[in-house]
Order: sequence, then structure tokens, then C-alpha cells
Amino acid sequence: MLETSRRWRREGDSVGLVPTMGALHAGHMSLVERACQDNTKVVVSVFVNPLQFGPAEDLDRYPATPQRDLDLLRSAGVAAVYMPSAETMYPAGATTRIQVHGVAEPLEGEARPGHFEGVATVVAKLFNAIEPDRAYFGQKDAQQAAVVKRLARDLDTGVEVCICPTVREADGLALSSRNAYLGPEERKAAASISAALRRAANSYGAGEHDLERLRREVLEVLEAEPLARVDYAALVDAETFRPPGTLAVLAVRIGKTRLIDNHDLAQPFPG
Amino acid sequence: MLETSRRWRREGDSVGLVPTMGALHAGHMSLVERACQDNTKVVVSVFVNPLQFGPAEDLDRYPATPQRDLDLLRSAGVAAVYMPSAETMYPAGATTRIQVHGVAEPLEGEARPGHFEGVATVVAKLFNAIEPDRAYFGQKDAQQAAVVKRLARDLDTGVEVCICPTVREADGLALSSRNAYLGPEERKAAASISAALRRAANSYGAGEHDLERLRREVLEVLEAEPLARVDYAALVDAETFRPPGTLAVLAVRIGKTRLIDNHDLAQPFPG
Repeated sequence: MLETSRRWRREGDSVGLVPTMGALHAGHMSLVERACQDNTKVVVSVFVNPLQFGPAEDLDRYPATPQRDLDLLRSAGVAAVYMPSAETMYPAGATTRIQVHGVAEPLEGEARPGHFEGVATVVAKLFNAIEPDRAYFGQKDAQQAAVVKRLARDLDTGVEVCICPTVREADGLALSSRNAYLGPEERKAAASISAALRRAANSYGAGEHDLERLRREVLEVLEAEPLARVDYAALVDAETFRPPGTLAVLAVRIGKTRLIDNHDLAQPFPG
Repeated sequence: MLETSRRWRREGDSVGLVPTMGALHAGHMSLVERACQDNTKVVVSVFVNPLQFGPAEDLDRYPATPQRDLDLLRSAGVAAVYMPSAETMYPAGATTRIQVHGVAEPLEGEARPGHFEGVATVVAKLFNAIEPDRAYFGQKDAQQAAVVKRLARDLDTGVEVCICPTVREADGLALSSRNAYLGPEERKAAASISAALRRAANSYGAGEHDLERLRREVLEVLEAEPLARVDYAALVDAETFRPPGTLAVLAVRIGKTRLIDNHDLAQPFPG
């Protein structure tokens, strides 16, 4: 992969990377589209990274649609798909791990110990293996995006990290490969997550800037939905992921499925 | 730096990196010489990395001879010297750290908590900032060499890590920038370190393969030197740095100066 990427750049191409765990949806494809606009060669990595899953999490049942993914990526005109095996990425004896202190510690960092260490380690490996000019991540995983930006700067990777807007269903639900876990009733209930963000953004737009009151509005919407259980709901600064701030970040369980979403309340909610 | 290095490679050059903390001696220059043989462009980094020093260590008095270093490197024909400031390497808010588990944990890892995290982090940054084809390290810092090899593989850096033989004074003392700390009596006493390795290597060559007896021989030589205090003396495997093995690794205090050295007892001691 590195040889190919270096040959491309030697020939004057620019290289964009879209890291994914497969099970591609329109959210991923919007990253691919943006990468194709910005670069002459686009590489999409498809790798369900075991290092970023906790022992009680859904690694074993994470959705996999490899043939469909390849078809989608072929149609989108990407130059290469990088699909390493777990044994290639983590051969016996591999012991190096990357930690991003600070921004990786609260919220998802607390809820999923080891998650961001897994993300940081695999992203650094992908950056080294592909040496892209730019890499694309979704705003849907806002804290991951902040962690990757920090990592890219701190380790002198020379990679420009581009964050692209969340893609949503008609009712507002943020696209996620994990939406596939939802039953029909759960799918309806999951709309409460974006509804909560929308309600708080509307209040903010109408002049309510008290962060604790905005947070309570978010919680009220979610607590009205019997199938939803709030893991966390916080209003944080978009760089540190600590309060206070206008970035509303949510982790919510709908049945057994844990979903995350976020929105900067100082911006109108889309749609 | 990255732009220059990428331009060189675009033009068909190969790039060798010799990371140093300055205060250059013949040991460093042997790495530079080897790098110049293997590559068409050689970069030497000079950076006293605060991250790899403990709070009670010698960061503030680490020897610095920048003008002499530059003169030496100019004469040696290196293509670039990379001399970042501490503020460039670790700007406010930089929080990313790299840990190499396993090989970095015993011996120096125990004696100097955080040392190898500092080494791993700065080496990854240098590899990213320069993207060398090859990087050169001395066998004198044997455990560091093993940690860097592990890191280079684990993070898919594509960098070939080349380990070069220890350069020694006439009496066997391994060259080290820290030898400058030694007073005249201490300098004489420091020869006990290599003498201990030589005696055990001679015994091994004469048929003594009992590792515990070989270790006691090493200790006997050091304990006969009143100015020497043994920090550790172990016979370890050269990949894991855990016993058993024939790599004799030593950390010894001569007065206030802590020196390390090592030798594979299965090989004749040089000189």
C-alpha cells in the first residue's frame, strides 16, 4: 500500500484517505465523495478494528457487508480499498499503543475504556501505511474527530484531518452502521436522539443560552421515550470535550443498541 | 523538513535518519558514516528530548555542544540537520504519547519510569517528520534499539531500523555523552563496566554457560570497584529483555553518573 501511495505522489497525485469499519452507508459515502473532490487518488480502508472494542461490546456481531462495500466504492471511483486482516494489523508480539490524553478522557473515553487508544493506534498505523495528504472523518463521531485531529498534529503526521457533516435520515436519526441493530419499534424510538438535539438547538436559537437549562431540555425529550436510556448527555467545549460549551453530545441506549450523536447548539439543526 | 525529504525521494534519493541528542562523539559519527554509506541523503536530528528525562534526572545539565556538532556534521557531509526547539516538538496542548508494552517494561523501563514513552513518542514524531527509508541507532542503548524496532514494525512506519556496534575507548568504556560528567578518578573507575562484560564474555568463550555464574562474575568485577554502584546487572533475551539469555545488560552508577552498557556474551568482547 505504501509503495503504491508513494508512487502516486511521485507522479504528482494527491492522496485522500477515508478510514471505515465497512458496513458502508450514505454517511461514509459522503466522506468518499468529498475526498474525491479534494484529491486525485482516494483510498478507503475497511477494517473492523478489534482494539477499539471493549470485551463486552459488539465486535463479534458488528455488521459486515464486504461485497456491497466494494461495489459501492467501485462505483464511487476510489483508487484503492485497503482491507487488511486483523493478523496483518496486529501480528503476534505487536505491543505498541498510542494514547491521546486530555480530549480522549471524558465521555466516550470514560464509557468505553481503551476505545480511543484503539482508535488512535489504528489511525496512526493507517496514516503511516498510506501517507495520505488528507484524511476524512465524520462529525457524527465528534470526540473521535477531535482525538484524531490532536493525534495528527501531535505526531507530526503532516496529514490534514477533514471533518464532514453528519448525514441524517428524514426523521433526523444520524446514519450509523449500528442502526442495523434496531428493531422497528426501536428504530422509531431512536428518532428521540436527534429530536432532543433539535429541540435544544431551537431553544438556543430562540435566545435560551443557559447551558444547564438546555441540557435539561435534551434530557426531557429523551426521558419521554420509554425505549431510550441516557448513557450521558453533556454540553461541552468542542476542543476539550469538557463543560461548559455549546456542543451537545449524547450517548443513548435504545434497547441493547448504544447510539451517539451531537450537535453544536449555536448552529441551527438541519432539515 | 517533510517537504524537503519528500522532494528528495521524488528525485530518487534515499533518506537516512540519525536521531541524536547532540553532544556528538565518535559513536554518533559511526552511525552517520554508516548512514552515508547506505543512503544518498542523511538527516541528523539534534534534540534533547525533555519527555525522556525523569524529574530527578540530568535534563538541565545534559551536555550541549551545538557549534561543534554542526561542524562535525558538515564535515561528515550530511544533507540536513533537524534541530527543533522543545516548543516546536511539544507545543502547549500536545497530549499524545506512545507506549511500547513488553520490551520497554523491565530494566531501563523500571529504573526510569516514562523514559521509553518519551523515546517512543519522539522517535515516532521524527519518523513522521522526515519519513526516512532507514534510521540508525547504537547497540550501546540496546533496550532502546529493541523498543524502536518494535515501534517501527508495530506502527507500519516502513522505516528500516539499523543497529550499529558500540564504539569504545581504548580501555573498553563505551562512548556516551554522559562520560563528560566523570571526574578523572571516576573515569578510571568507569572502565570496570566494560571489564565486567569482557570477563564474562571470556568465561563464556572458555565454556562457562551457566547464566547465574556468569552474572556473578559480572557483579564481582563491579563490586571490586569502590566508586561503582550497580543499578542492575541481568542476562536477558535480546528481543524481550527478560531472563534468561546471553545479552548482559548493565546500569552502573559511578559517583553521580549513571552509565549503561551491554554485550552478548556468546560473542567475543572486542579489542
